[in-house]
Amino acid sequence: MKAAVLHRYDETLSSDTFVQYEDVPDPKIEKPTDVILRVGGAGVCRTDLHIVEGIWRSKVDVQLPYIMGHENAGWIEEMGPAVEGFAVGDAVICHPLVTSGHCLACRRGDDMHATDSQFPGVNTNGGYADYLRTGQRSLIKLPKGLAPKDVAPYTDAGLTAYRAAKKASRHLLPGQFVVVIGAGGLGHIGIQVLAALCAAEIIAVDRSDTGLALAKDCGAHHQIRADGEEVENILALTGGRGAEAVIDFVGEGDAVAKGLAMTANAGFYYIVGYGGRIEMPTLDMITSEKTIVGNLVGTYPELVELMALADRGLVHLSTREYRLKDANQALQDLHHGRIRGRAVLIP
Amino acid sequence: MKAAVLHRYDETLSSDTFVQYEDVPDPKIEKPTDVILRVGGAGVCRTDLHIVEGIWRSKVDVQLPYIMGHENAGWIEEMGPAVEGFAVGDAVICHPLVTSGHCLACRRGDDMHATDSQFPGVNTNGGYADYLRTGQRSLIKLPKGLAPKDVAPYTDAGLTAYRAAKKASRHLLPGQFVVVIGAGGLGHIGIQVLAALCAAEIIAVDRSDTGLALAKDCGAHHQIRADGEEVENILALTGGRGAEAVIDFVGEGDAVAKGLAMTANAGFYYIVGYGGRIEMPTLDMITSEKTIVGNLVGTYPELVELMALADRGLVHLSTREYRLKDANQALQDLHHGRIRGRAVLIP
Amino acid sequence: MKAAVLHRYDETLSSDTFVQYEDVPDPKIEKPTDVILRVGGAGVCRTDLHIVEGIWRSKVDVQLPYIMGHENAGWIEEMGPAVEGFAVGDAVICHPLVTSGHCLACRRGDDMHATDSQFPGVNTNGGYADYLRTGQRSLIKLPKGLAPKDVAPYTDAGLTAYRAAKKASRHLLPGQFVVVIGAGGLGHIGIQVLAALCAAEIIAVDRSDTGLALAKDCGAHHQIRADGEEVENILALTGGRGAEAVIDFVGEGDAVAKGLAMTANAGFYYIVGYGGRIEMPTLDMITSEKTIVGNLVGTYPELVELMALADRGLVHLSTREYRLKDANQALQDLHHGRIRGRAVLIP
Amino acid sequence: MKAAVLHRYDETLSSDTFVQYEDVPDPKIEKPTDVILRVGGAGVCRTDLHIVEGIWRSKVDVQLPYIMGHENAGWIEEMGPAVEGFAVGDAVICHPLVTSGHCLACRRGDDMHATDSQFPGVNTNGGYADYLRTGQRSLIKLPKGLAPKDVAPYTDAGLTAYRAAKKASRHLLPGQFVVVIGAGGLGHIGIQVLAALCAAEIIAVDRSDTGLALAKDCGAHHQIRADGEEVENILALTGGRGAEAVIDFVGEGDAVAKGLAMTANAGFYYIVGYGGRIEMPTLDMITSEKTIVGNLVGTYPELVELMALADRGLVHLSTREYRLKDANQALQDLHHGRIRGRAVLIP
Repeated sequence: MKAAVLHRYDETLSSDTFVQYEDVPDPKIEKPTDVILRVGGAGVCRTDLHIVEGIWRSKVDVQLPYIMGHENAGWIEEMGPAVEGFAVGDAVICHPLVTSGHCLACRRGDDMHATDSQFPGVNTNGGYADYLRTGQRSLIKLPKGLAPKDVAPYTDAGLTAYRAAKKASRHLLPGQFVVVIGAGGLGHIGIQVLAALCAAEIIAVDRSDTGLALAKDCGAHHQIRADGEEVENILALTGGRGAEAVIDFVGEGDAVAKGLAMTANAGFYYIVGYGGRIEMPTLDMITSEKTIVGNLVGTYPELVELMALADRGLVHLSTREYRLKDANQALQDLHHGRIRGRAVLIP
Repeated sequence: MKAAVLHRYDETLSSDTFVQYEDVPDPKIEKPTDVILRVGGAGVCRTDLHIVEGIWRSKVDVQLPYIMGHENAGWIEEMGPAVEGFAVGDAVICHPLVTSGHCLACRRGDDMHATDSQFPGVNTNGGYADYLRTGQRSLIKLPKGLAPKDVAPYTDAGLTAYRAAKKASRHLLPGQFVVVIGAGGLGHIGIQVLAALCAAEIIAVDRSDTGLALAKDCGAHHQIRADGEEVENILALTGGRGAEAVIDFVGEGDAVAKGLAMTANAGFYYIVGYGGRIEMPTLDMITSEKTIVGNLVGTYPELVELMALADRGLVHLSTREYRLKDANQALQDLHHGRIRGRAVLIP
Repeated sequence: MKAAVLHRYDETLSSDTFVQYEDVPDPKIEKPTDVILRVGGAGVCRTDLHIVEGIWRSKVDVQLPYIMGHENAGWIEEMGPAVEGFAVGDAVICHPLVTSGHCLACRRGDDMHATDSQFPGVNTNGGYADYLRTGQRSLIKLPKGLAPKDVAPYTDAGLTAYRAAKKASRHLLPGQFVVVIGAGGLGHIGIQVLAALCAAEIIAVDRSDTGLALAKDCGAHHQIRADGEEVENILALTGGRGAEAVIDFVGEGDAVAKGLAMTANAGFYYIVGYGGRIEMPTLDMITSEKTIVGNLVGTYPELVELMALADRGLVHLSTREYRLKDANQALQDLHHGRIRGRAVLIP
Repeated sequence: MKAAVLHRYDETLSSDTFVQYEDVPDPKIEKPTDVILRVGGAGVCRTDLHIVEGIWRSKVDVQLPYIMGHENAGWIEEMGPAVEGFAVGDAVICHPLVTSGHCLACRRGDDMHATDSQFPGVNTNGGYADYLRTGQRSLIKLPKGLAPKDVAPYTDAGLTAYRAAKKASRHLLPGQFVVVIGAGGLGHIGIQVLAALCAAEIIAVDRSDTGLALAKDCGAHHQIRADGEEVENILALTGGRGAEAVIDFVGEGDAVAKGLAMTANAGFYYIVGYGGRIEMPTLDMITSEKTIVGNLVGTYPELVELMALADRGLVHLSTREYRLKDANQALQDLHHGRIRGRAVLIP
């Protein structure tokens, strides 16, 4: 099959071709619960750029060359003998983690904290390819109204945004405020999820006109430019107290310090984006009684919930399609801020 | 009356006398809900040393000279005309904040986030004195078995430890672990509260033999010396995963980084002590999905709950008494690590 | 002043005049925290009919004659000396309970479980009158966009519906269903609150075309007629499992048994309406693991939250105005099902 | 193999032999995830008597003759080809439900609400036998200190008691009260779990001296005889307000009405026992804002938690052993109230 393969890291992201479009062997069924997917759409994620940069080397164990692509949807091509409840040809979306389901975290419903798992596209071959090997426990059948290429980015970008926004929605009350920092691929989904799940006023913060316009379309009640005055502007908007929840989809540069500064006392700062650092005196944490919450991708049931929102039209994904052979173009466009919403590779 | 008065900051804590024992005017009833207390006990807290150092100057607005002492209990001496349900002579313990009760935080039960409050001993005159002015909403009648001097430190040290331990107990399950860093004035109460409120295994971390022995007496199931190897030792004890909750009563030096390192994925690091800094890459927060929780003193109802524990003998406070005139001795002994449990000034 | 006074119970609700419009003495300030309100609107509630029937005699201690009216808003006419933060002339809405704020329930934010409280219109004189005595702790200043007569029914009908719907919204997830039984004065607010606070699909059940049409306007996604087949229809709509939450605003006749039958296993049945009985074998509760939740009026902070929703246009109250002197007409119209939404008495 | 087989229902429980000890075919591996267990202990439960009475016929579909016994532990005798992580000879305890793990309830961790499951001993052959067929997902390896015959009753009696007590412990605070009605096979475990998981004062209610003595041994702080005055006695003990939680392990006769009557306003009545009826005016539910919670057996992770308590000695099961061939004697002794704690059949 064809695939877009990563052969070497590029710490400065300065080359023209990050991946190489080439022939590779087809994946095979190895375990009774394995499933081979014909890829219908593979999302292109900022994490892919971070992988190219090599900043995940400390966290995961993967040998180059390998195939990136951790946001996958498609059609079942082949199934292991123990797979139940699916048929060849079914349109499915893949939870990003492949788990056995036996550890205590899985039994509690927290699959993404499984002690034993694979993350195709991160620590094993992913979906920048014609075919992908995944597992039964990752599959969710798509409702008829949803096509693989239109939903693929929900599996990581969407699911991560959903999980963070859902956590915030559990404590946000009418009369309170939530800030979304970064109205890009994740942020524009986070805004829609917040609008669906709670009645707090949503404030979007972004550097670009495009981002702010997208945020408004997605339901943000206020748009604030990240121009250096964003903390002051948000304090002014919230009666001086800050927002009861801040969801930071940027997580680098000054976003972190500003995100913490615009969080109200007793409020929650949800960190989703990464690349930067949290730096804060413990005294400030004590006197403000703030909480800093790390956010991983969501659980399998949370992906089911997100699909329910998508199927009812409550969440819409802004995508731009590229052919698999144009994967480098997609990665370059993402790197240079030329994508509104999310890039998806299609066959 | 007599009081131990703070006249100047001492950033290096190097002088022999931090406060001056002298005559000052008696406090007076000013508002209809004011109450004058004859002080029966005033706890001596590490925060008092931090006040002397001046590190609270950025957080609170107080003019020297003033009277420290924010952990107070005693007997009602005089009451404003609007005070209901109490009588002169009643033995009471004081919630550390004096609030009007009208703001939304108070109406939700979160008095310590009141928009309008006084904190005697921190931003107005406190209890290192014969008499103290407080407010009706701060008072809790003591059960007969409890004397003011024996319970005074519960109002801040105890209440702060209680709140953090209670938060942790809400998610700790049998089979999980909780680490308490620092078995001093707060930590030894935190351990007892954890033992009363949940069935997680309690691991105490402390630098000194005295602290570890006190921790064991208080119900810690494991004692680990803070000797540089504490992270490795705790990972070994917890099957490699770390503790589901870590409560850090130190909050300075390497306690913070180590506390975060010994927290399990999806776990909670509760920060109570202060003086140091939280420094962590956002990537580590994302991949581990940890939560960092700031902790302030507890609410009025939480002080009622703590008094119920104390009255039933489930929490016991280790105290050492000093005369008010010997306040400097108490502060010096605390500063030099010569106190097991908590110092209390008595008349 | 003028008032509509209840002089005698009428167990069959068969007389033409339930209350008598007549002169009574003005209320006076008695306690320092008392407030006299010039009534701008007083909601007419099914509870008023139940009071006339006498079914509340077992629950509250009130002597006839007295003045009903427990949903009140207006302008401050006079204030006791201890009232802070308000001015004569302020437009306010009243939380239905008058409390001192000192008991543990109040300190925890659960004012409606206060050990010591008054409920004007239920156990003391209410707002079917020109003036009403209430207390400082009951008052919420109205945003400029909201007039007393337009919001008065929020204080009980709205607040009760809000509390039940908010409880349900805390566990309802995308892909789940919530049933609202009864789209009348409370139900039509409950539907709007659910639509604002969660993304579950809302199913309204009502006997009348008017109710179902109002439900649709309020945001119900499905309307089911209460025609005897409603349980079967809801099971069909929910894939056979029933709704994860059922909020029963009727609470009498067969609504209770049907409401419980249409609740999914592990689901929640919220009972708000009353007059009927819960009757269920314990075996059915065990095997289904259902939860039955009683619902009282909400807390003061919850009324603040509801006002925030109203101010942002997320909840709209359907009202019909009557002059105070026409109170009997309003009560008769309510009794005979001739009111869409909620009746309000105005000066 | 030998088994104690149920051949006919006995609605009055009046015969001498409820089951017949006889030869039956051995169970066989049918699905790749099946496991055959050599039974080491099978708990004898009041539900078994209810099954003999036939009151479960309306809830489950099972054809006589079949083998009861839903509380099983033992050693692995044989495993299907897809079973991972276990070895023949491992000592294990069985979660009572056998599930595939694919439905949304399982994926959320709520296995006992699986859409597709078997309940050996209830709707298929159980453990009153030499061998039992179960599934991989039901197995928990026993710590070395625990033997199958000593823990078997934890799988249903213990797990059900644990789940109800754990739910209550999540909201019970110091200063509050919890009532346990019925200090028998379930109740005596519930008391120990409450003592381990919260600091509320525990009040046991039972008809017999034996039950009250067992309750005291298990950690109940107060013992109240069920002599007709129990509601009044509990109101007196709780300052007139009732208990914040009541866990009813009886669920029949007047226990239900009394249990509800001794529940405080805003409190929770947990129903675990069955056979009786809940009957309550909706008005009483509204004014008291009580919650009635149905309780099923716990989840797999909850059984892991309970094993952790047992392994640490925080919960101890009072058992009486009978040989499998004496199953009728065990059932008769249970029926006639002659068992302290729990009966267990051993090989």
